[in-house]
Amino acid sequence: MTSLKAFAEIVGTDYAMIGADTAKWAQDWTGAYSGAPGVVLRPADTAQVSAILRKASELRLSVIPVSGNTGLVGGTHAPGGVLLSLDRMNTIREVNPRARTAVVEAGVILSALHEAADDHELIFPLTFGAHGSAMIGGVLSTNAGGSNVLRYGNTRDLCLGIEAVLADGRVVDLMSAVHKDNSGLDLRDLLIGAEGQLGVITAAVMKLYPKPRAYATAMLAVPALGPALDLLNRLQDATGGAVEAFEYMPRNYIQTHLDRIEGARPPFDEMHDVNILVELGATADRDADPGPDGKPPIMALLERELEAMLEAGTLLDAVIAQNEAQRREMWARREAAAELTFWRKPYIDTDVAVPLDRVETFLEQANTRIAAKDPEAEPFYIAHLGDGNVHYGCYVSDPSPAHKDAIIAIVEDVVAELGGSFSAEHGVGQSKLATMRRRKDPVALDMMRRIKHALDSQGILNPGKTIPD
Amino acid sequence: MTSLKAFAEIVGTDYAMIGADTAKWAQDWTGAYSGAPGVVLRPADTAQVSAILRKASELRLSVIPVSGNTGLVGGTHAPGGVLLSLDRMNTIREVNPRARTAVVEAGVILSALHEAADDHELIFPLTFGAHGSAMIGGVLSTNAGGSNVLRYGNTRDLCLGIEAVLADGRVVDLMSAVHKDNSGLDLRDLLIGAEGQLGVITAAVMKLYPKPRAYATAMLAVPALGPALDLLNRLQDATGGAVEAFEYMPRNYIQTHLDRIEGARPPFDEMHDVNILVELGATADRDADPGPDGKPPIMALLERELEAMLEAGTLLDAVIAQNEAQRREMWARREAAAELTFWRKPYIDTDVAVPLDRVETFLEQANTRIAAKDPEAEPFYIAHLGDGNVHYGCYVSDPSPAHKDAIIAIVEDVVAELGGSFSAEHGVGQSKLATMRRRKDPVALDMMRRIKHALDSQGILNPGKTIPD
Repeated sequence: MTSLKAFAEIVGTDYAMIGADTAKWAQDWTGAYSGAPGVVLRPADTAQVSAILRKASELRLSVIPVSGNTGLVGGTHAPGGVLLSLDRMNTIREVNPRARTAVVEAGVILSALHEAADDHELIFPLTFGAHGSAMIGGVLSTNAGGSNVLRYGNTRDLCLGIEAVLADGRVVDLMSAVHKDNSGLDLRDLLIGAEGQLGVITAAVMKLYPKPRAYATAMLAVPALGPALDLLNRLQDATGGAVEAFEYMPRNYIQTHLDRIEGARPPFDEMHDVNILVELGATADRDADPGPDGKPPIMALLERELEAMLEAGTLLDAVIAQNEAQRREMWARREAAAELTFWRKPYIDTDVAVPLDRVETFLEQANTRIAAKDPEAEPFYIAHLGDGNVHYGCYVSDPSPAHKDAIIAIVEDVVAELGGSFSAEHGVGQSKLATMRRRKDPVALDMMRRIKHALDSQGILNPGKTIPD
Repeated sequence: MTSLKAFAEIVGTDYAMIGADTAKWAQDWTGAYSGAPGVVLRPADTAQVSAILRKASELRLSVIPVSGNTGLVGGTHAPGGVLLSLDRMNTIREVNPRARTAVVEAGVILSALHEAADDHELIFPLTFGAHGSAMIGGVLSTNAGGSNVLRYGNTRDLCLGIEAVLADGRVVDLMSAVHKDNSGLDLRDLLIGAEGQLGVITAAVMKLYPKPRAYATAMLAVPALGPALDLLNRLQDATGGAVEAFEYMPRNYIQTHLDRIEGARPPFDEMHDVNILVELGATADRDADPGPDGKPPIMALLERELEAMLEAGTLLDAVIAQNEAQRREMWARREAAAELTFWRKPYIDTDVAVPLDRVETFLEQANTRIAAKDPEAEPFYIAHLGDGNVHYGCYVSDPSPAHKDAIIAIVEDVVAELGGSFSAEHGVGQSKLATMRRRKDPVALDMMRRIKHALDSQGILNPGKTIPD
């Protein structure tokens, strides 16, 4: 393997691995994709990434970038290929509290950025279950979402500048740290969410936000999604948009959490069909400074709204977190989602978004039509309800690809009828390639292929994913 | 002219204009660019835009899209070319108050969208001086900014989906109305701000926001920019980010406004060097519902902050608008900027952004270095201070392109040293082409050229602008 020798010269022999050493990267998080990469390279810096891509271009070898390997769509699966792991490039180069920015490398773990911001009483608001292992490179390359998109936007909204290495090894410097930059085509947003098709993101300037000085976090049981959405709107109006998260968990999710997680406790004395995790964040003094009762006004505000709902009969039960430990317990239940979902097979998962007021219709339609096709199917889902984003999934009776694809197509049909998106926040990777082919506007697909060819004419970057042939 | 006949067949003879009928489009708003287009076409719908571009591709004719023609960078100047005016496509197809979206065509005037939103107690927050004539197509194609970017973002942040016609006449449908859509490369954001290089935007889904139920608007005189920025931070912390605008006007701007605008009145009894227009918007009930004194709490909050500044000696004078007429007068002063700037020549204008805390340094450096080069130069500028975005301009002593370029290069140097952006919100067009060539990362420029070629291989869309050869 002459190419292994060439790559080892770039990254050092310890960081060019083959055989058993690559086992860690042989399987994706969901277990749906397996097969060891031919070689795993772990560069130390952008110059090494550049040299690797120059060499790979010369040899016409496929390169598949990976950072935390926590994606759910098979986007970093690379049997036999050159896997480029950014995990060693894990330096937080700078936190600038005055400008509220952080300059980070692609291998920085999301939690590490959270902690670095917290040291300055700031937050990097993006978060999701895998925050302890997901890395910024993958977060950017998938334009990741999560639980706080409602207030702060997704990754693209949180990034001011990036550095990336193109297929031919050239480095593009778009490391702007200002909020307004109209200097030609928007290459930054094109590279973000491109799933490694156009370049390898090596560093970025991320936005930080004031840390909420108080939270009001609660679990609610409501009779249906309608009253929950009314509550969301009332809370947004009352606070001027301080709702950080509004998460929906149905009964079977709560039950599975109790069954499978050691020490898990039920949110309420009784089980309910519609459970909501709501969190308000108070950055304003007048919401955070404790009132006469010692509580932050934001919590009193939430209590008042919930009391009004109880009186109106639109709230069945509610628990407000009284301390950080109780708040963490509520969040741990929500963040176990991936763990609670992917242990059982055969399973189909989707990641759709519909207009907020159509989530209930979407769920009814999808459940009904799937039951007609596969009476043994068991829907299992959760939703970022405040974004209209449903991680709709289903345990199906037949593991054949044809059956699974037929079930997915049913979900896609409902989404299309409701004017939604078939791919909300997880990305396309391999698992949604068929969906992209049949659902995305054909002119848009052609544009993507042309742009891909213009920037990676040999097609060496992460082939066979994201953009269908 | 066989091509005129062919185009007239598409749009109708009344809407394919040559000669004197094209005079309206012969000059740009600033007066810097003049020369009549060869033909002006005014299509009625997307199908006609598509047919025009198909025909132009066949004939290899250049097509320059224009909507409101209020740009400041020569981006729609088209001597002898085919000018494609979107002005007849001015339908607001839908306002959906529940989803808080509006579906608009490219020729909708910005003010018309403001009014349509207002009918539903909502706002489309983007605004700037030319709101009465600027159209959505140009707003999108330049990723326009303005006075409310601080709170709501620029145009890209306010758009959910677009429809565009490519150089070969194909229509790409990206009219998503959901907030999360990760389905492949981000073509929407690539087309937004592309200044007509990649396609002609024909329609869009724009976001709407709750209309602030009360405003607190004031003119402040402060001894320097430092105390102004401290105030901005305090107001953001106190309100949780309710500052809608924070605009800086120096003494000579205020004076020019008095001199040139009929009926203009001074903001204060005395003239001051540093004048700030600040506006807070209250969407939350607790900020807007009138208190015991009949005033919205947001106004009391602003008063308290200003009193504290007066006591500390960091505020020289302040006037709070007591009614909508007074508020409008404050805004009219700011919105006259373009009118007050471009009447006198020779003038160089720039549109730069630097980190917030470096605006003062930027101004000092630019003023000093320009004075050394051209002692007769008179700086004339305003700033979206809350964004670090300065419309730095200067009346110079010598109208020669070489001298003007030398002055612009001085500004660019200072911006580069301070880590800023040489093109913040107006776009590149023709006026910043030289700047793009010498200041933008060369790999980024090469990527732009490749993408342009991939989507418009004949180079018929708005040639000679935005992306330097």
